Amino acid sequence: MKHKRRSSPLNALAMIMAVGSIMTFVTPDADAQQEGRRRRGTQEVRPIELTPEQVAQLTRIANERSLNVDDLLAAAKTFMPSGRHDEYVLFSSGGHSGQVHAIGVPSMRLLRTIAVFTTEPWQGYGYSGDDDRVIESLKINGKPVTWGDTHHPALSETKGDYDGDFLFIGDKANARVAVIDLRDWETKQIVKNPLTISDHGAAFVTPNTEYIIEGGQYATVLGYGYAPPEEYKESYRGMVTLWKFDRAKGRIDESKSFALELPPYWQDLADAGKLASDGWIFINSFNTEMATGGVERGNAPFEAGASKRDMDYLHIINWKKAEAAFVAGKAQSINGFPVLSLSTLIDDEIMYFAPEPKSPHGVDVTPNGQFIVVAGKLDPHVTVYSIDKITNAIAQKKFSGSDEYGVPVLDFDAVKEAQVELGLGPLHTQFDDKGYAYTSLFLDSAVARWTLGGEYAKLNAEQPWKLVQKTPVQYNIGHLSAAEGDTVSPDGKYLISMSKWSVDRFLPTGPLLPQNFQLLDIAQPGNTMPVIYDSPIGVGEPHYCQMIKADKLKTWTVYPEVGWDPHTQRLAPNAPKKGQEGVVRNGNNVLVTMTAVRSHFFPEHVEVVEGDTVTWRITALETAMDATHGFCIGGYNINLSLEPGEFAEIKFVADRPGTYPFYCTEFCSALHLEMMGYLHVKPKSQNSAAIE
Amino acid sequence: MKHKRRSSPLNALAMIMAVGSIMTFVTPDADAQQEGRRRRGTQEVRPIELTPEQVAQLTRIANERSLNVDDLLAAAKTFMPSGRHDEYVLFSSGGHSGQVHAIGVPSMRLLRTIAVFTTEPWQGYGYSGDDDRVIESLKINGKPVTWGDTHHPALSETKGDYDGDFLFIGDKANARVAVIDLRDWETKQIVKNPLTISDHGAAFVTPNTEYIIEGGQYATVLGYGYAPPEEYKESYRGMVTLWKFDRAKGRIDESKSFALELPPYWQDLADAGKLASDGWIFINSFNTEMATGGVERGNAPFEAGASKRDMDYLHIINWKKAEAAFVAGKAQSINGFPVLSLSTLIDDEIMYFAPEPKSPHGVDVTPNGQFIVVAGKLDPHVTVYSIDKITNAIAQKKFSGSDEYGVPVLDFDAVKEAQVELGLGPLHTQFDDKGYAYTSLFLDSAVARWTLGGEYAKLNAEQPWKLVQKTPVQYNIGHLSAAEGDTVSPDGKYLISMSKWSVDRFLPTGPLLPQNFQLLDIAQPGNTMPVIYDSPIGVGEPHYCQMIKADKLKTWTVYPEVGWDPHTQRLAPNAPKKGQEGVVRNGNNVLVTMTAVRSHFFPEHVEVVEGDTVTWRITALETAMDATHGFCIGGYNINLSLEPGEFAEIKFVADRPGTYPFYCTEFCSALHLEMMGYLHVKPKSQNSAAIE
Repeated sequence: MKHKRRSSPLNALAMIMAVGSIMTFVTPDADAQQEGRRRRGTQEVRPIELTPEQVAQLTRIANERSLNVDDLLAAAKTFMPSGRHDEYVLFSSGGHSGQVHAIGVPSMRLLRTIAVFTTEPWQGYGYSGDDDRVIESLKINGKPVTWGDTHHPALSETKGDYDGDFLFIGDKANARVAVIDLRDWETKQIVKNPLTISDHGAAFVTPNTEYIIEGGQYATVLGYGYAPPEEYKESYRGMVTLWKFDRAKGRIDESKSFALELPPYWQDLADAGKLASDGWIFINSFNTEMATGGVERGNAPFEAGASKRDMDYLHIINWKKAEAAFVAGKAQSINGFPVLSLSTLIDDEIMYFAPEPKSPHGVDVTPNGQFIVVAGKLDPHVTVYSIDKITNAIAQKKFSGSDEYGVPVLDFDAVKEAQVELGLGPLHTQFDDKGYAYTSLFLDSAVARWTLGGEYAKLNAEQPWKLVQKTPVQYNIGHLSAAEGDTVSPDGKYLISMSKWSVDRFLPTGPLLPQNFQLLDIAQPGNTMPVIYDSPIGVGEPHYCQMIKADKLKTWTVYPEVGWDPHTQRLAPNAPKKGQEGVVRNGNNVLVTMTAVRSHFFPEHVEVVEGDTVTWRITALETAMDATHGFCIGGYNINLSLEPGEFAEIKFVADRPGTYPFYCTEFCSALHLEMMGYLHVKPKSQNSAAIE
Repeated sequence: MKHKRRSSPLNALAMIMAVGSIMTFVTPDADAQQEGRRRRGTQEVRPIELTPEQVAQLTRIANERSLNVDDLLAAAKTFMPSGRHDEYVLFSSGGHSGQVHAIGVPSMRLLRTIAVFTTEPWQGYGYSGDDDRVIESLKINGKPVTWGDTHHPALSETKGDYDGDFLFIGDKANARVAVIDLRDWETKQIVKNPLTISDHGAAFVTPNTEYIIEGGQYATVLGYGYAPPEEYKESYRGMVTLWKFDRAKGRIDESKSFALELPPYWQDLADAGKLASDGWIFINSFNTEMATGGVERGNAPFEAGASKRDMDYLHIINWKKAEAAFVAGKAQSINGFPVLSLSTLIDDEIMYFAPEPKSPHGVDVTPNGQFIVVAGKLDPHVTVYSIDKITNAIAQKKFSGSDEYGVPVLDFDAVKEAQVELGLGPLHTQFDDKGYAYTSLFLDSAVARWTLGGEYAKLNAEQPWKLVQKTPVQYNIGHLSAAEGDTVSPDGKYLISMSKWSVDRFLPTGPLLPQNFQLLDIAQPGNTMPVIYDSPIGVGEPHYCQMIKADKLKTWTVYPEVGWDPHTQRLAPNAPKKGQEGVVRNGNNVLVTMTAVRSHFFPEHVEVVEGDTVTWRITALETAMDATHGFCIGGYNINLSLEPGEFAEIKFVADRPGTYPFYCTEFCSALHLEMMGYLHVKPKSQNSAAIE
């Protein structure tokens, strides 16, 4: 990686400005850099002692603003001084915005949105004209589906710990999974599940990111098939897909991926086992009633029909056995994709069920892998299973029967470790480093802290498997996320309550209100777990998030070499180099070879003829951090983000004559407004001499 | 407006849940509501006094986090306790994200993004299938241009004060202006300028929002014409467009709008006169050199060629005279749009020039309307003009000559009130309530506070027309925005530095970094103006923003009646009512009439035949605040946001058979996941009995 700063080859500003020191705009000056270092803690900060005058000043501000003492403490816990970096990054789904949001913790500041399933022009995502690679990757059945319902972000893991290399995220609406490279924070790949239209429990990873798990939700006819609801039990199916991840390539290898046929229950969240339970996948389900709704025919609606039974099924799947069956050629092809049938899952002892109460949402494996926590959203308990008990029960065939499709159901009492009564609407559970678990209570609008048993019992002073306290949150918490909370070694310290309704907690923003990410301080043991920050989320409706220690990320701040293609993560062979710029015609095809550097494009005029097909390649010659340019052509649906060193290509038909300004869309220098040029589209009627 | 809470007509949850008190998820309970009131100050808060133990606790937290005393003060000035509402709303352009962001001040929390020029699925903006009204409104020359480069948001004004009714914003890339209704915070109208491809100085309003001013930037051949750069002086032109606003209709009236032909200088920012200068518009310009670049031919690039002259031209336009000329029929039609020619502007004494140094960006009228402040970005001064001197000079014909196009140029010394040396790269100026002006210094990376003269001189202790202090910001500030800073009565108190490069101030987010909105406390006079918050902006590259007192907004929190069409802001005649639900076939057209209420759609099954054209109408029956539903059809490019009471219509061709789940995309209750249904698209080949 080159981080060398380079001045503009043609320093036009220097030629024309009477005032000195003009390059100060490029990077912070030395004082500021020193301040930045101090702020980030590489230089010692002397402890403060507040003088009586300072206490009086602080008290005066607090009273002017009606802050109480808890507010002052919360402010001191969350405020980030100018230039200081946050300690954690929260990667949050953007829900049906289709994007991912990266938020700094503890300040809760939105650092960046990453475009994934929805086109986004600031990032130049899907705005490069015809044959745009993003648009192509978003096509379903030949037509662009340019949005998604992002649900579960999953950080890549090594030995069960976040490694900071990749982020995966699923699109519930369209059953897609995306791969984001955390070197440049850009989406690199989108795969469409050929079996189902929508999914839900995507994505979760196995402990070394061997597979990305995409769980299903609403049963359909696998492979985009059709069947009326009367044929539900026979024709509809659930599924879970194991997408093989090729870490060296940074891509999902579709050819080594496969799926498992599941009964037409609505599979919900999934989690991979780790350590003691490595090799297993756990998937919740609801609507084991197989209700088909039909309120319009006088039936009970889905919401009632799918909630009648007291118990649903926890799917317990041995993914290593499944992989072996797939490798052994036991999969059948549905819509071109290999699927292990239900009978193979039964015959090869790949899948078992355990009863679980009642319409559960979250299934979460404790950091040591020994316990599996199921939050039954219509049951006031969490139910805890033991992997030892599960494997024993399987070995000893302690079954209470089998389901309608022949899947063996393990005896509930044989596999249950504990049930802990928490309150109304348990949804999802996270863990810390002190032997506590944290469960969101949707109907209570609260976060419950409770104690784990087993080897965790010694980490705190409380009795195991007991509720310790509940902290109210506002309102209707869905998921929650603790620092490194899905790993083998969670950090504790911070927890995010993803509160779904903000109602009156923020200024009203029209009938569509933001959600509320509330930050809880979970550093102190026992009965102390205050909310210390309310953060409105008004750019989509986040579903789930994961929180990684910031120093694990190995982010690039400029591209490794000038002429880099972020789509392939290597040097682009076609990237224009300085000195190669020009416009070349070949019949009705025009190739524009352009460079961009503060503060001009080269060339500045491009003349084509109405009807020409134009291919336009640009290299950003910049190598300084933050020296990003944009490139747009007014009136066309084209905008690029040209980050330092980046190469990009656009293509379009110049189908209407005119004189079109193009310009740099990203403020880049004092002469940013002058970084422009013209695309001249000559009318066909005037074009006697243009084509020679 | 009805705010009445209404329980679900079919309370399915009640039928099935054993646990009590289930409707608590709808709205906060009484305790929380009381807490909310207390937080928002309608109930008295008792002043605090910090005990020694509390001071010690605060000091310990500060030292653990390496905060100094200034950090603690800044934290206390910006922290918003849970549930407390911010005092101001900052409406910021999202730059080439194409959107508007609403940010609370002083907490700097992003409250909501408003979709304007870019489609956005969370808001259901542009995702209703075929003939989508948003997509239609974004078409240019028949093709969707689904992004914009939002530049200048302008709040509607009454008597020169923000009235909180509407927000306007321009799209620089495509010369469009959007109207946002601040009752529901939704974009209602987009107008495309038929004269130019791109603009810049849009939008600014006249003091009673008679007109929305759209200034141009890069000269082109008006009306989408073509001419080679050799014909620049003859054929290229600038423009300013006055869009007539019909406040009663909440729409721009295109039939009463008109433009002015300007010389092919690059017009930049504009501002409307007020009070003393009411009736005037001021527009900066640069590239009065009329450079045409051509670095590819060995010419100086635009950045150099456009910056040679020491003086450019301040355009001084009497819009009331222009309106009279337009009404008198003096406009000529270009591409169907009325344009007052340069000769009319000269003959009717509508426009004058004043010299202005050098490549200026901002032109800003003081709150009393008496002074016009020009920030010459390549000149270390701001230049202040007096409206009295301007009108005198016009009356007395104090001209220093005329420009190449015959526009009279006023004598610089006759119209100049003062020049104040501030530093490197002055860009834009804002005002407060204490007689200070604030100018961004791009190259200095600083905000300058300086004193105004005239009647402002008595408001503070300093000499008039003098620099008072500079506060460093990080880095490369573009625009700035003070509380109510563009009105006749600014509030002072807070100022936003829109710092364009954040470089290393935040955690790196890949090569594409956020911008940095820095909050300055400008409440104290004199030499005290600290930065108190750094806010990363990683969802676009904002250009300019305006800050309004939150209590001026009259936001709807639910739609006034059930069945409301936000596009028309009235009841939709076609909105499905409860009891009317159903599916009706007419040939190959299928009409679906649906209602949505927690937590089911009615009907839950819709069967059509492959190839059918489906029109699907939905009414959200909810009336409780925040009870929003979404509606998507998996695999189709369709997602709606159904806010309480909202009606929406989608249309599509069911062109591929299959069993498509549709579901609620916005978390709405404990049984949100069960709020779903199926669209069954029967294969044509199986369709013997379907059509009766």
